[in-house]
Parts: sequence; structure tokens; C-alpha cells
Amino acid sequence: MAAAPVWSVDPRTGKPREQVADEATAEEVDLAVRRAHAARGALADRTARAALLRTAADLLDAASEHVIEAADAETCLGPVRLTGELARTTAQLRAFADVVDEGAFLDIRIDHADAGRTPPWPDLRRWKVPLGVVAVYAASNFPLAFSVPGGDTASALAAGCPVVVKAHPDHPGTSELCASVLRRAAAQAGLPEDVVILVHGFEAGVELVKHPLVSAAGFTGSVRGGRALFDAAAARPAPIPFHGELGSLNPVVITEAAAAERAEQIGAGLAGSMSMGDGQFCTKPGFVLAPAGEAGDRLLASLTTAVSETEPGVMLDHRMRDAFIAGVGERSALPGVDAPLTPGAGGEHTVSAGFLTLPAELLTSEGEHDLLLEECFGPVTVVARYTSSQEITAVLSRLPGNLTATLQLADAEAEGTEPGAAELLAELTPLAGRVLVNGWPTGVAVAPAQQHGGPYPATTSTSSSVGATAIERWLRPVTYQSTPAALLPPELRDENPLSLPRRLNDHPEH
Amino acid sequence: MAAAPVWSVDPRTGKPREQVADEATAEEVDLAVRRAHAARGALADRTARAALLRTAADLLDAASEHVIEAADAETCLGPVRLTGELARTTAQLRAFADVVDEGAFLDIRIDHADAGRTPPWPDLRRWKVPLGVVAVYAASNFPLAFSVPGGDTASALAAGCPVVVKAHPDHPGTSELCASVLRRAAAQAGLPEDVVILVHGFEAGVELVKHPLVSAAGFTGSVRGGRALFDAAAARPAPIPFHGELGSLNPVVITEAAAAERAEQIGAGLAGSMSMGDGQFCTKPGFVLAPAGEAGDRLLASLTTAVSETEPGVMLDHRMRDAFIAGVGERSALPGVDAPLTPGAGGEHTVSAGFLTLPAELLTSEGEHDLLLEECFGPVTVVARYTSSQEITAVLSRLPGNLTATLQLADAEAEGTEPGAAELLAELTPLAGRVLVNGWPTGVAVAPAQQHGGPYPATTSTSSSVGATAIERWLRPVTYQSTPAALLPPELRDENPLSLPRRLNDHPEH
Repeated sequence: MAAAPVWSVDPRTGKPREQVADEATAEEVDLAVRRAHAARGALADRTARAALLRTAADLLDAASEHVIEAADAETCLGPVRLTGELARTTAQLRAFADVVDEGAFLDIRIDHADAGRTPPWPDLRRWKVPLGVVAVYAASNFPLAFSVPGGDTASALAAGCPVVVKAHPDHPGTSELCASVLRRAAAQAGLPEDVVILVHGFEAGVELVKHPLVSAAGFTGSVRGGRALFDAAAARPAPIPFHGELGSLNPVVITEAAAAERAEQIGAGLAGSMSMGDGQFCTKPGFVLAPAGEAGDRLLASLTTAVSETEPGVMLDHRMRDAFIAGVGERSALPGVDAPLTPGAGGEHTVSAGFLTLPAELLTSEGEHDLLLEECFGPVTVVARYTSSQEITAVLSRLPGNLTATLQLADAEAEGTEPGAAELLAELTPLAGRVLVNGWPTGVAVAPAQQHGGPYPATTSTSSSVGATAIERWLRPVTYQSTPAALLPPELRDENPLSLPRRLNDHPEH
Repeated sequence: MAAAPVWSVDPRTGKPREQVADEATAEEVDLAVRRAHAARGALADRTARAALLRTAADLLDAASEHVIEAADAETCLGPVRLTGELARTTAQLRAFADVVDEGAFLDIRIDHADAGRTPPWPDLRRWKVPLGVVAVYAASNFPLAFSVPGGDTASALAAGCPVVVKAHPDHPGTSELCASVLRRAAAQAGLPEDVVILVHGFEAGVELVKHPLVSAAGFTGSVRGGRALFDAAAARPAPIPFHGELGSLNPVVITEAAAAERAEQIGAGLAGSMSMGDGQFCTKPGFVLAPAGEAGDRLLASLTTAVSETEPGVMLDHRMRDAFIAGVGERSALPGVDAPLTPGAGGEHTVSAGFLTLPAELLTSEGEHDLLLEECFGPVTVVARYTSSQEITAVLSRLPGNLTATLQLADAEAEGTEPGAAELLAELTPLAGRVLVNGWPTGVAVAPAQQHGGPYPATTSTSSSVGATAIERWLRPVTYQSTPAALLPPELRDENPLSLPRRLNDHPEH
């Protein structure tokens, strides 16, 4: 059987640009995993890991023109956005190098033997070790920051895990280019190139998650695809952790007072956030609870004006465009749903942004309107108009898990001089991993305190895929009991030769 | 349909003692979960949580005579062991109260807004919040420390999660007694009693893991039972974390030099560890790699002597006794397997300890002998005699995941003056969560640096069910972005009014 060709496609036309690779056969996936597995020992050297991450960032910066051109050709995300995304990607690689250097992620805990306990405690020394080969499933909508050189790869390498990346079919050429840069960085850091291996193909992705030597997986994509891989990971003879970011509505609640105070500003802000990048962000605000009545009307007028000023855009691929148009059509057809500005086909290859409205009351109990509580990928948001705080509560209680939840408050509410805001914040917290006040959820800072992950279906685990803690996904703890100093790694020896942050006898070590 | 009665059974005779409860119907499970869920808000108060844990310990201590008598009647574990187990249980409850007080488990990270970044960072404040109702599946072999008042319950309550415990049928009366003590402790701490609810019945356990308001589960038990519940947890519309401790061989590697130096001591130590508590510990050393030849022979002679001095014992229930006898029979019948001391039926209701031997070579490739690489619950261990270090490596590479792995070394090897020990330690580390040198795996200190959990099937996740970090299983991170101080919990405010350990702008706060 001939290998299936992998084509780079121009989303502006739907036409193939060039063949960039072949899909990996089951044998090729097996070989890739075995090679990555064989390279794992070299990654035990944390200095080399940090060097790899920094070198990868440097080489990506050096190749920026080429990388951005390749990514734009395949995704139509544009050079401005892609320049920002590359900067984010290299900053992320460098941030994980810093995480590796500091070593807090090793979570070292040492309890000296204590004969005074009943029964006596032996000497116990705990740290975290890499899980092994990590499968990374690249995202369509971030060809860099959530793909080959993205956060899953960076955090897995930082943890000491080799990576086999399954490329996203929307940017196979960019993936090949980035993989070659990462492999070059590995060689320059004195590591085997096989610490990063790229494979293409849907079937290859399924083989990958089932491979006995794959020990964990990271995924960013759709609920359907992610759930299928999650299920395969759970059904293995030895199940593995599957950290998947699937889908998120990212609800926004706008209080009556906020709308009264800042209707125009909120409408314009919402328009910017929901239409940014043609609505192709996982943090797009896709569901809004706005007040019925005059202030809410002003807000929607502002939203209408701002959204109608956006240009039609090219989505990442034509399948997504079709799904967007169909999804909007199905939602618009529901009784009670209006489309003050109809989203949909903007031209032969583009889509135009818009939004739908309905009375929030229609969402307070199970029914056909529940479709509006599912993510619709693309430049559309649903505005549910409420008439009471009871309606807000009733609708919020029916929402699935989210990456983010946003609260728009009036000044006095934010300052706590008007009541109600704390209660709303408490209602939003169970729904999401990140809760914002008077901001917009698009734009995810790569910061140590970031949390990019929320209750299912936002994420299939309790982890974050962005920020310093993303490294925790690829580690497991091991405790050495009564192990002689001569056999311990330096990290666990009493003298702490590497000056790592540790807990000693249940207190931070000084 | 009449409710199915739950009987307390005397393992000494297999006869019912008394009816202590009814199995919970699906409706009763639903009600239990809803009640626990309704009680979750009260647990947000960390001071009350710590008080609950300490009060529970105090009340268990006060009821110790009654508790130990109830547990012994149902398990035949004996007052000495049960007195120790109760002490361990109350120490564990108090240790988690200390964990709650210190607050490091909240993992607070604050990044102040930074306008100098591109793009600018907003203010981000991250901590961990309780997941919600936790389902706890009690273990057969620890009626206290891994059951109703055990580590799963203690860590879940410490995290702020209400608990619905599914009692183990081997000790339903003890479970009822302990649940009533915990509920009384809740009331005394000013919390709703429903933060702990007990249910009985196999079907109730299945209903529990599927309940939409159950947000995580902890399990200690068999591979078959645990895997079925893990699969149910993963197959839910919204999957939940399932932290299950299933089965473990707990391999021991005895070097040639160790056997030459301490054959008698190692043989006696192994006998004590594998027969302790009638081999009913999850950390029982069930598989041993010992050298062929004279030193190994001496070791086995010592093992034979020591094991033959043990008295027949009563297992936790007759089903287990039957499974032990059948399991030993099946293993003994394999070609090349000898039984220098035949384990099996010790009397009408008891079992006697023993061990099997075979050449390690029979385990270096797939075949019928792989049965010997599966846990056999009860007082038996399998000693594989190796003739080369290549055989050790070949057999270790075929072992499933374990809670523990043990290395017996000669002094010069432990001191690093003879080579080989570091390499063996490196081979054992991927196999287990706890690696011991010159000790025995039974006996798990409830210490901050403990790791009780290893690769599948030892554990279905990368977590520990013992020690301070066990609390991490029941939490998820939430980041507040740009949230006004007036709306933030005190834990996340700049002034740190509770003096909690935190990271501020990527460094420990001082």
C-alpha cells in the first residue's frame, strides 16, 4: 500500500499548495516512539534540557521570517498575529528553561529517619521523575504556540520527556519546519535529535496514543477528536494520563449596573474579543448573559456596530468554515433566537462575524436550546438576555465546564460598595479555570500564575496547559527509602549540592 | 423490592454475625451524593476543616476499644495490629489538619500586572479549590487506615471535599461505627454531618462513580474491581479523576554479594515481610529475584525455616481464602515451579504461608509463566533464581508497575565501593513509586515525603494515597484575573492576612 501523501493546503482557496510529507504508517509510528524512548536517558541531564529549550527559542527567532511565512501560507492568520505567536512561543520555551533551572518542579521532600515515631520512620526522599515519551497533538488554531514548538512540547521536554508530535493537518509544512528546528536545537545542546519526532496522519495519532511506550498525552482540539483519543488512552491495558483541552463556551456575565455604566465600552470589547482571529480562539467568549432592557439594548447596539465593522475572514480550513456556517444555521433556526447581525458565509472562502440573541429564560431548563450551550468554533457569540438574577443563576447552573468565565461589573460592584458581585464570582468559579473581572478572556498570558484548563469538556484533567505548572503533567513522584547517599542523585543528598528548593522534615529548607 | 441486607461476617467461621445495614438503592445513592454536595459550602472554612480532622482523631481515640473490637470481630486482624492501625489513622487525620493549617497545598501563585511585557500581563492570582464530592471505596485489608476514616477520606476532607464512602463488605459494622464518629466530629466542629456519608453495596458503588455530582474517586482494592470502576469513571459524559490503588508485585532484587554477606538475615526479613498480616498487605513482597547457587540456597533455607515457623492465619474473608488457594495451586502447577514450602489451606478456615521458586530464565520472555508476574493476595511469594545480571534486567523489563521495589545490597555495594548498585537502582526506579534499599516494603510511614502509588496497575494515576501530597488529588487550580481586592478571598490579597506560603512574581514570597 502506498503511503498517503500529506498536502499543505491554502485556506484562502482550499487548494493544495505542495506535498510536504507522507502519513506515518503504524510501523513508522512504532519506530518513532521507540526512537524517542531510546533518547529519554539523555534528557535526564537538566542542564542539557534547559540548553535545548533556550537554543530552540534562539533558532526559532533566527528562522522567524521563514517560520511566519510558512505558517501564514497554511493558516492565513497573518504576519502580525503570527509574529506575536512566535514571540509567545519562544518566550514560553525560555520560561520553561528557567523552570528547569530553578528546580521547584522537582517538588523535593526529604524526611530524615525518626526513631521516635511509632512505628519508626525510615529515611524518605521524594522527587519527581519524567513519565517517559509524551504524545503531543498539535492544535489547528495555534500553528506555533500550541503545536510542534508549543507549550505541550516545551513543558514535556522541560520535564525530561521525549516528545512525538502528531502534526495538525492544517499546517503540516510549518510543523515540518519547526520540528527540524527543534531537532537541530537538540543536537546543538548535545542531545539526540530524537527527543522530538514528528508524525502526520489521523491514524498515526490513534496508533500513537495506544503505543505501550507512550506514557502520557497532551491535546488541544475539538471535543469529538479529543474525547476519542481520551477514550483510547483510558482503554489501554495500562491507561495513561491524557491532558486534553477540548471545548469551551467561555461565558460572560454582564450585570445590569455594568451595562448601565459602560454599555458601549462593553459592547465594543465583546466585539473585539469574539471576532479576534475570526473567533478561532479557545478562549473566545461564546456565550454572554446580558440584561434585557434599555442598557442591554445599548450594549447590543454597540456590539452590532463594532462587529459589523469587522472584515470577512478566512478560517483555518474549509471544513471548519462549513461547520461554522452549519452550526450558525442550526442555532439561528431555533425558536426565539434572533440574529441582529447574521454570522455566516462572508464570501466563497471567507466567513463574517455576527451574533445571536435569545431570552435567557429559554435556557433555564433542558431542551432544544441546549445546542446554544455548545461551543461553535468561529466568529459568533450567543447573547442571552436575562430579566432577573434568578435567571442568571439558573442558566449558569446548566453550563458545562470552561477555560474561562468573565464578569463585567460596574465600578461600585467591583469596589464592593454595591452588593452582589462576590456572589456572582462564587457562581462563576466552579465553571472555569480562569475567572476574569472587567477583562476579556482572549489573550492568555504565559505567566507562572496562569491557569489554562477548566472542568470538562474544557479539559480532561485538572491541569493547566499554559504557565509554569504545565510541567506537572509529565512527572510522577518517586520516593527513595533508606537509600545510601552514594546511590542517591545529588538532588536528594543532604548537602544539597545544587542548591535546589526543597522541603526538609516538613518545612522549607533553609 | 426489599432492600438487600448487609451482614457482618465472622472470617474465622464464614458465618454471619449480625445485620448492620441495608445496601443502598440507586435512589439512596443519589440522595447521599446530593446531601454531601449540599454540605460542600461549609467545608470552605479551613479552620473548621482542621477542627473536624482533629476532632475525628480525638473521638476515634476515645472510642478505640469499641472500634478495635468491632474491627477484629469482622477482620480477625487482631488487637495488636488494629491498635497500631488506629494510631496510624488518627495520626493521619491530625497530619492532614496540619497540612490544612499550613496552607502550602493551596499552591498560591500571584503575578502582579506587568505592563512591560508584550503583550502586557494582567494581574493573575492562582490557588487551588476543592473539586466537589469525592467517592471513597474502602479497602478490605485496612478497616481503618484505608477505609471510612482513612487516608482518602482524611485527604478529601482536608481539601474541602465532602465524602461519600462505599463501605467494604468485609467490615460493614466497623464502617458504620467509624462513619458515625466522623459525622459526630463534623457536628462538633460546627459542620454539617453530611460531609461524610456511608453507603453499602456493590451496585451502590457503581452508581456512585457514575453520579453527575461526584467529582473524583479514591479506591483501594483489586485490579478487577478497580479497573471496572476506573473504566466507569472514564466513560462518564464528564469523566472524573479516579485515583485507584489496584495491585502490586513489589519486586525485590537480592544481589549475589548481598546474599553472600547476609543470606540468613535476608531470608528471615523476607519471611517476616511476606507473611506479615497473612500476606494481606498491598506492599507484600510478592516477587523476588535471588541468585542461583550456594548463597541463594542458604537464603532460601533461612526463608523456609522462618516461614515454616509462622502460624496458619485467617484471611479477611472466605472468598479471598478460596482465591489464594486456587491462585497458589495454579502457579505451583506450572512447569519448572517448585514449592519448597507449599502455601495453601492451613485448616478449614485458615491459610498457611509458603513460597514458590523457579529459574528466572522462565520469565525472560512471554509465556504461561507470566501468571507469576501477577499479584497473588495472601501469604505467598515467588522467588526467581537468576544466573546473570542479564537475567535480572530481562525479567525486570517485563514487570508491570508497582507500589514498591526493593534492592538488597552488600555493604560495599551500598557504599558505592563495589559497582553495579547504581545501575540496579536505575532499573528499579521506573517500576515503582517507592524504591527501598536494604529494607522491606511492608510498613508505609505516614510521612510528608511518602509516595504510595506507582505505575499502573499499582495506581491508576500519578498520585500518592499516603502522605501530605495525597491532598493534591482532590483539588483543581483556579486563577483570578484582574479581580479587585474587595472580591478576592483573603488568601489571594496582597497583604497576605493569613500569612500563607505563596509565590509572588515567580519567587517564594517573603
